[in-house]
Amino acid sequence: MARTRLSSFRSGCGVDYNAIFEGAIERLHAEGRYRVFVDILRNKGSYPNARCFAGHNGARPITVWCSNDYLGMGQHETVISAMEAALHDVGAGSGGTRNIGGNTHYHLDLEAELAELHGKEAALLFTSGYISNEASLATLAKILPGCVIFSDELNHASMIAGIQNSGAPKRIFRHNDVAHLEELLAAEPADVPKLIAFESVYSMDGDVAPIAAFCDLADKYGALTYLDEVHAVGMYGKRGGGISERDGVADRVTIIEGTLGKAFGVMGGYISASQTIVDVIRSYAPGFIFTTSLSPVLVAGALASVRHLKDNNAPREAQQTNAAALKAMFSDAGLPVMASTTHIVPLMVGDPVKAKRISDILLIEYGIYVQPINYPTVPRGTERLRFTPGPFHDQGMMEALTKALVEIWDRMELRLAA
Amino acid sequence: MARTRLSSFRSGCGVDYNAIFEGAIERLHAEGRYRVFVDILRNKGSYPNARCFAGHNGARPITVWCSNDYLGMGQHETVISAMEAALHDVGAGSGGTRNIGGNTHYHLDLEAELAELHGKEAALLFTSGYISNEASLATLAKILPGCVIFSDELNHASMIAGIQNSGAPKRIFRHNDVAHLEELLAAEPADVPKLIAFESVYSMDGDVAPIAAFCDLADKYGALTYLDEVHAVGMYGKRGGGISERDGVADRVTIIEGTLGKAFGVMGGYISASQTIVDVIRSYAPGFIFTTSLSPVLVAGALASVRHLKDNNAPREAQQTNAAALKAMFSDAGLPVMASTTHIVPLMVGDPVKAKRISDILLIEYGIYVQPINYPTVPRGTERLRFTPGPFHDQGMMEALTKALVEIWDRMELRLAA
Repeated sequence: MARTRLSSFRSGCGVDYNAIFEGAIERLHAEGRYRVFVDILRNKGSYPNARCFAGHNGARPITVWCSNDYLGMGQHETVISAMEAALHDVGAGSGGTRNIGGNTHYHLDLEAELAELHGKEAALLFTSGYISNEASLATLAKILPGCVIFSDELNHASMIAGIQNSGAPKRIFRHNDVAHLEELLAAEPADVPKLIAFESVYSMDGDVAPIAAFCDLADKYGALTYLDEVHAVGMYGKRGGGISERDGVADRVTIIEGTLGKAFGVMGGYISASQTIVDVIRSYAPGFIFTTSLSPVLVAGALASVRHLKDNNAPREAQQTNAAALKAMFSDAGLPVMASTTHIVPLMVGDPVKAKRISDILLIEYGIYVQPINYPTVPRGTERLRFTPGPFHDQGMMEALTKALVEIWDRMELRLAA
Repeated sequence: MARTRLSSFRSGCGVDYNAIFEGAIERLHAEGRYRVFVDILRNKGSYPNARCFAGHNGARPITVWCSNDYLGMGQHETVISAMEAALHDVGAGSGGTRNIGGNTHYHLDLEAELAELHGKEAALLFTSGYISNEASLATLAKILPGCVIFSDELNHASMIAGIQNSGAPKRIFRHNDVAHLEELLAAEPADVPKLIAFESVYSMDGDVAPIAAFCDLADKYGALTYLDEVHAVGMYGKRGGGISERDGVADRVTIIEGTLGKAFGVMGGYISASQTIVDVIRSYAPGFIFTTSLSPVLVAGALASVRHLKDNNAPREAQQTNAAALKAMFSDAGLPVMASTTHIVPLMVGDPVKAKRISDILLIEYGIYVQPINYPTVPRGTERLRFTPGPFHDQGMMEALTKALVEIWDRMELRLAA
């Protein structure tokens, strides 16, 4: 179909909508950060192997190196079986909001399981991690009169959206900077409600927040704490409760937010907190109230995944082993691997066009899929490639990846790290 | 687990967070609109039959009368089979955002199918209808400098969220009131970008917008139009394209928004529009960019459902027949059925406590499940019961429902309509 001009422009009215929209797209091209989505299908049972489509002319095998299905649970037989059983027990969708017909037994069971995982009284499911952050932060800040939000400067877009949409005043503290946070907390009156919002694992750098130190400040200044653990649940702690479990501080955090779409391999988000706070969010958050609930098929799969990862440490250990091995290989090869302390392995490029070019060569010439990460996901000038080795990336795959990167770095005359 | 007091209160700091949160819940109880979710599982293959749990002590059979799975497609073998096939082909979740590893072939196929359904160049999937409205409206209004949004006073919470979050000035027009909308449009300068946001079927009243007349105004005043068809897609038009297809005006609407979680029976939302507009939303909307994409299992199911309803009119006809029959039965019995012109059958109660009481009696004594609808879903004083008869509600079920309602109306001494 030919591209259409918008009718209001055709009719000669004052606004050229198309020119505005096309200008917005043109700016992305000019900055080299127009995004092209790579068309893939994963191969169930042999992940990280997948098929890549180009122009729908058939599939070509690739190895996926940038998935957030960190432990391959989206392929696990326990999860697949649970989803298949639910599909045949109750059908596809829930058919309604949680309040109107869409509250299934699966939802209640998963919420109980997640509350138990984090040692909290209650949990609440959302259709995504994005909306769990947006809805919870916006609602908390609206309910607490005069609330001031203290937000880490590298917080995820979904937390920023929730904070902005709440209309509450916000104070941005330097990334993971305890002293700066204290300075900002001390500047507010004692009787003002305060909420400290931060993440445990920052997904684009791979560093970790000083949760205990932040909780000390929360106690000292009478603040609530909101911790996003989406890149940690399933992967840290003895039962997959995240960094807050690993560090033994989950009981000190007011609200722990997580996702079912990364290490748990399915889709959806949640918060866990006291019964009262969960009831407030459940009762007041538009992003929770006015939306069809998660499909019971997804909920059943997530339930199986959470339970499996509570009882099995092997996937977590294998992931840590492989992440350490890949970092060592990159470092030994002189590639500019960033100082991550987690399973995330980022390589700094610092230019959106070069990052895209490296990614294109990897995909086309080597059958290796890693997406370039550009603004607004990371700050301009820090564009990078971000690898997520998991338990199923074997030694041969890691060697092939390192060799390909060295060849491309040489070809593009990118300076190797000293 | 005993309810905990928040640590910041225990520590004696200035803010009693628990008192604030408990006060917020108490206000809901005091108004009689604290929501209790009914714990159910649908019986796949025999919908609207389902099981209801009370205190997890086993299941009791019920008939569901308030589901938005309007045509029972969430139970349809075509949909179930497609989901099962996808589950075994690619696994549970997508593993990433659309940009980073989560763009599957299924997503592209469904977007092409939806664009074709509405006669548009392109479509874009979201994790929910809520986020599709929020993200699209907020992003459009931010991209268009000085944009003024014209919003129907009964628009859904998700549209209101998008409009508020855009920060753009808004003008609220009286529900479906063409003259009032024109008055507001005429008051703005010609060179200001304008966006008219409205729904086709209003889900709590069952009335329909004058789409053609609104498009006439859009042409006259140089405005874009944004139409929410979530309660119409799959159910109106010869191929399920919604009221805009039925009325032959889809090509006049700039952006048509829909859901995969109601008549299509699965989960997720979408917009369809010109290639340029879809590209703008795809490239700029945080609620699209920063979230794990829909599970390919859901996408495969929705694709099967959309295709099935394009080719089959029988479910649409059966739904209209049953809705008309139920309205006639209610009316003949003197029950206060509201003046819906669609498949929605609302009964006015006008009081949140009575509406909840009727719903409780129906569930406990008659095994009939219909949720009371209260504020903020409908304005205070217009609390109601809302029935959604579908192709699988048979004559016997309708008679049993009407009889039960008449008995309860008598018992509670509610005045019957004249």
